[in-house]
Amino acid sequence: MDRTTFKFASSLRVRNYEIDWQGIVHNANYLMYFEVGRLEYLQHLGVTVNMHTIQNDAKVVLVRNEINYKSPAVFNQLLTIRTRISRIGNTSFTFEGIIEEAETGKIIADGIAYHVWLDPQTDTATSVPEHFREIVRKFEGTNVEIL
Amino acid sequence: MDRTTFKFASSLRVRNYEIDWQGIVHNANYLMYFEVGRLEYLQHLGVTVNMHTIQNDAKVVLVRNEINYKSPAVFNQLLTIRTRISRIGNTSFTFEGIIEEAETGKIIADGIAYHVWLDPQTDTATSVPEHFREIVRKFEGTNVEIL
Amino acid sequence: MDRTTFKFASSLRVRNYEIDWQGIVHNANYLMYFEVGRLEYLQHLGVTVNMHTIQNDAKVVLVRNEINYKSPAVFNQLLTIRTRISRIGNTSFTFEGIIEEAETGKIIADGIAYHVWLDPQTDTATSVPEHFREIVRKFEGTNVEIL
Amino acid sequence: MDRTTFKFASSLRVRNYEIDWQGIVHNANYLMYFEVGRLEYLQHLGVTVNMHTIQNDAKVVLVRNEINYKSPAVFNQLLTIRTRISRIGNTSFTFEGIIEEAETGKIIADGIAYHVWLDPQTDTATSVPEHFREIVRKFEGTNVEIL
Repeated sequence: MDRTTFKFASSLRVRNYEIDWQGIVHNANYLMYFEVGRLEYLQHLGVTVNMHTIQNDAKVVLVRNEINYKSPAVFNQLLTIRTRISRIGNTSFTFEGIIEEAETGKIIADGIAYHVWLDPQTDTATSVPEHFREIVRKFEGTNVEIL
Repeated sequence: MDRTTFKFASSLRVRNYEIDWQGIVHNANYLMYFEVGRLEYLQHLGVTVNMHTIQNDAKVVLVRNEINYKSPAVFNQLLTIRTRISRIGNTSFTFEGIIEEAETGKIIADGIAYHVWLDPQTDTATSVPEHFREIVRKFEGTNVEIL
Repeated sequence: MDRTTFKFASSLRVRNYEIDWQGIVHNANYLMYFEVGRLEYLQHLGVTVNMHTIQNDAKVVLVRNEINYKSPAVFNQLLTIRTRISRIGNTSFTFEGIIEEAETGKIIADGIAYHVWLDPQTDTATSVPEHFREIVRKFEGTNVEIL
Repeated sequence: MDRTTFKFASSLRVRNYEIDWQGIVHNANYLMYFEVGRLEYLQHLGVTVNMHTIQNDAKVVLVRNEINYKSPAVFNQLLTIRTRISRIGNTSFTFEGIIEEAETGKIIADGIAYHVWLDPQTDTATSVPEHFREIVRKFEGTNVEIL
């Protein structure tokens, strides 16, 4: 991933209970870090996220995660979580994320999370609404591929 | 994934604290369930796994996870975790996993975890040793692709 | 605590991701184990527990936890979680729990969890209803102190 | 607890995956928040804490936790964690903690954590060393009861 395409970053310090028996952050916790990044990204763009919906008119589900582990994070390390929406399709959209050591920029992990927009009544895939596309287009500019 | 290629399965009940604010298992917890499956698989094959090493002569690191979410797991659900090593390369090997609702066989998620075998002295990739290949070949038979 | 006063036990195996950087179960996870015990206890007594209520007519909140750590639990250990309601007051009730190594009976931890029964409309403390007292009295007999 | 006796505070934001199925922070996570406070407190006092030891000459174990839940913390809430050592006995010492909503000072929870100082060779209780008493006395002044 090309980190110059990311316009948004969060900051997060590794907590002791996220360390596993190998003395490094457990591999599942990075998914949680990426999720912290996604929620802060949406909040930054003015998208209301509550427990079940985005903007009160949609239910969004995560359908696939990919994550590459580059270098382990350790206790008390300050991390930068870079987040962007890289693509909006008809009924889906894609987040990319990079986790770096804040001080050195060393890459800890990168990941892609695929989401589908559901109709909250029928729970079936529905078009990503125009207002959401517009919000993302406005923030990401030409960095986001919108179908 | 074709579940008939899996010869090993673990059993696991969803605990309440694994449920997130949406009332379903949090997406990161499935990575932990797959890991439970991998550890039980290795134990079943007689491979000693302690905190840092496999068979006391190797350090194995997870380098990539892929997971597809098919249907959410819920509180108290009994799950079947199917696990297999699908491929052993020169310095790497690949686990596949399927999580199903135990009762109905409904698929909850599937995932692939890529590991690299490291030399514990130098921390650089090294050939997957012959004794490990042999153990897996013996258990998986023609189901595993061994380079 | 006197384990002969406990009539109910759950079984639970320590999962790898519950192990902390010291190689033992993280101290907060025992609270989760006790909670597993409490939920199974209530289910065993026929009390419906969903996300927010007990028996659809009450909201119960945890107001205090006490836990004594006796001996650390380790990876893959099979644990017995003993659970009982030891006391029902006017608006509160008390769970006691013991976590033991299943094989040897060695005590890992014991704990007390204090709950208050709330009126779901007003969120203020209200009398523990008679039908709940009756269910517990029937199961616990003279072991439970009911005010 | 009297919050004016606390000279040290940490800051922490509730992460989404710490929220449980009731939409509030799971009760076990507060123990982790208190632990964050204790580690930052010790670091602030110049006490080296690594995975197993304090100051490389001791092993410290947690023997008891007490926690009172006053008001639930919610997603994205900024919390203040107040931490102090309130008492040093012969072989033990006691941490107190208060978790507050940062903005309003509303109390979320308070807790007490009891630790014992072990001889790392024999794993038996040993006197809390003078240099540790001195460090704490210097920071806490008359707020700490030292036997």
